[in-house]
Amino acid sequence: MADVLTLNAGSSSLKFGLFELGGPGAEPAARILGEIDRIGNGTQMRARTAEGAVLADAPLPPGDAADHAGALAHALDLIARVRPDARIAAVGHRVVHGGPDHAAPVRLTPEVLAALARLEPLAPLHQPHNLAGVRAALAAFPQAVQVACFDTAFHRHHPWVNDTFGLPRAYYDKGVRRYGFHGLSYDYIAGRLAGLAPHLHAGRVIVAHLGNGASMCGMIGGRSIASSMGFSALDGLPMGTRCGQLDPGVVLYLMQHEGMGAAEIADLLYRQSGLLGLSGLSHDMRELEAAGTDTARQAIGYFVFRIRRELGGLAAALGGLDALVFCGGIGEHSAHIRQKVCEGMGWIGMELDESRNLGSETVISTDLSRVRILVIPTDEEIVIARAARDLVTPPG
Amino acid sequence: MADVLTLNAGSSSLKFGLFELGGPGAEPAARILGEIDRIGNGTQMRARTAEGAVLADAPLPPGDAADHAGALAHALDLIARVRPDARIAAVGHRVVHGGPDHAAPVRLTPEVLAALARLEPLAPLHQPHNLAGVRAALAAFPQAVQVACFDTAFHRHHPWVNDTFGLPRAYYDKGVRRYGFHGLSYDYIAGRLAGLAPHLHAGRVIVAHLGNGASMCGMIGGRSIASSMGFSALDGLPMGTRCGQLDPGVVLYLMQHEGMGAAEIADLLYRQSGLLGLSGLSHDMRELEAAGTDTARQAIGYFVFRIRRELGGLAAALGGLDALVFCGGIGEHSAHIRQKVCEGMGWIGMELDESRNLGSETVISTDLSRVRILVIPTDEEIVIARAARDLVTPPG
Repeated sequence: MADVLTLNAGSSSLKFGLFELGGPGAEPAARILGEIDRIGNGTQMRARTAEGAVLADAPLPPGDAADHAGALAHALDLIARVRPDARIAAVGHRVVHGGPDHAAPVRLTPEVLAALARLEPLAPLHQPHNLAGVRAALAAFPQAVQVACFDTAFHRHHPWVNDTFGLPRAYYDKGVRRYGFHGLSYDYIAGRLAGLAPHLHAGRVIVAHLGNGASMCGMIGGRSIASSMGFSALDGLPMGTRCGQLDPGVVLYLMQHEGMGAAEIADLLYRQSGLLGLSGLSHDMRELEAAGTDTARQAIGYFVFRIRRELGGLAAALGGLDALVFCGGIGEHSAHIRQKVCEGMGWIGMELDESRNLGSETVISTDLSRVRILVIPTDEEIVIARAARDLVTPPG
Repeated sequence: MADVLTLNAGSSSLKFGLFELGGPGAEPAARILGEIDRIGNGTQMRARTAEGAVLADAPLPPGDAADHAGALAHALDLIARVRPDARIAAVGHRVVHGGPDHAAPVRLTPEVLAALARLEPLAPLHQPHNLAGVRAALAAFPQAVQVACFDTAFHRHHPWVNDTFGLPRAYYDKGVRRYGFHGLSYDYIAGRLAGLAPHLHAGRVIVAHLGNGASMCGMIGGRSIASSMGFSALDGLPMGTRCGQLDPGVVLYLMQHEGMGAAEIADLLYRQSGLLGLSGLSHDMRELEAAGTDTARQAIGYFVFRIRRELGGLAAALGGLDALVFCGGIGEHSAHIRQKVCEGMGWIGMELDESRNLGSETVISTDLSRVRILVIPTDEEIVIARAARDLVTPPG
């Protein structure tokens, strides 16, 4: 059987997965899931089987994975060692930005790659790294089908009122839009919900993807209507180190009265803000929950408050609410955050079941709660693997 | 009896009012209400009595009101002509920004004035004009009590989670906070609601101040809990020419890829955006409603959508909703906008009565609507006059 390689390249990381394909339409089966961190300096590689057996967990030799191509070479060495018979027929890439035109995965051609490079100004901190991963894979697998899966694609059918900002129309036309991100995660959750509870999938659902990056998506019938993220990966919820919603007047103030330039402001808003900036301690929710200091509690309090406020705003965009789904590292693992988000939300019909929540069950609302509250672990890699599969063995 | 002069100085306008004081605690009685527009170029003066009789409606001689002091001189001429016995014991000023410390009106001393001037970076397009009005009045009435009434004061007791942004704490400490504005209007509405419907005043209320500037305020028991506006007068709802909520990444994009500087971006976001930018036609809601073109409809649609989304977000901040109050030029006069805002809001308990809405009655919800919907004309001048009265004839 043929295999699919999935790649998710961040600024200094590379996640990879090896999936074995069955026939057309069959679910790709994960065989290896791995991650290389801190590329270029103190690089670490971890990998495991789908069942959880550890395949690698060690630093790489200094200077040995200096860039994404070097990291990819290490990932491929591991794959060749663990599954010598692997035949990589397709490579699926997570690409953060598909621009206004891509509402679905696309096969990577030189023309498509050039067009995606032109979108780098829209996501300067993510897109160049994603495309570095693509170039490394094109060099390593010149014969394989390569496919780009976009974090923006799931949101490309937003109604116009939730695709535009209040700027002169020329800016919309040149691409200043509310793209929304985390689309691979939302796509996965929508699909799982269709299987678990088709009547909820058909209704008004808010998904809270709460990880180091965090956003929320309002959907009806499994289609995105609105997202808390807008043009960049900064907007909406506060994140590990990103600010979330910010008055544009604050950016003007930083320019005019703090004398800061664009690079300095970007560094502040992307890397020094959010949970880290508010707590002064850490970007990591687990560390903040363990710390229990005043500033840690305040940072958590702000995170929760903004989730609640977005929840109300998205419910208004949907015309009400039938279900709330938590996913992402924090959403899946922090019963405390889930409880704080749902506290006093009876006005919208939400009632949390305390013991179900502590047990992280799939349904954590009470039986009488009008709004169903769920926890569904997300899986962006399988969404990429499915898209690659569909290009190798077209469905139907 | 003594009189109070109220002044509300904008970038190129000066609103003024003459109020006659009764005894301590008695409501100041409006005698003259006027406005001088387009100061410096094509200046117009309009004034009327509280009963609506026209006192002035004509252009001023070219060059004759070149600045706020010149405009004030014309206003005082009119007052002296219409009410020769007026004895101005106090002057009340609307000042947009009181900074973190002022949660109430304050008597203007040289020290206070200097402190308010130091806040100009927080409201560069409003504060300098407000203070120009103060200086003109200090020169004209050196013996009168002068009092500053702040648009931010009503919001200064926000819970911390709704006072901060997701930035490093040092920025909060140096004054980068969610101040909120239109506080004189909200203060007036809270007072009116206490008289009209004390049970609603005690509950969870959202006030939508919809004028050429627009914001929304969530209050409980008549105290502001949250506002749609943040640090500057840009955030939240789109306005006549202001953008409203904007991803900070868009500002970075304008700097990095459009090569725009701070002054150019400020001009774009304050003066070319909002209804004007989206419609390409006008900043004026009445003109857009009359135009009926596609872009006019889209601009109105975006305005309404953002109001609805803020409404949901503020309801979450309040833990539910008991009443929605419309005020401001658009809120008081556009039955169409009110209807669009309330459409399909049954999920939150709102049901509009169509004929009451068309008649702009005080209560425009149906008798069965769980959430009461009201229209209350606002009056910022009387709030200023009351504050001035309290310094001349202290209550109790």
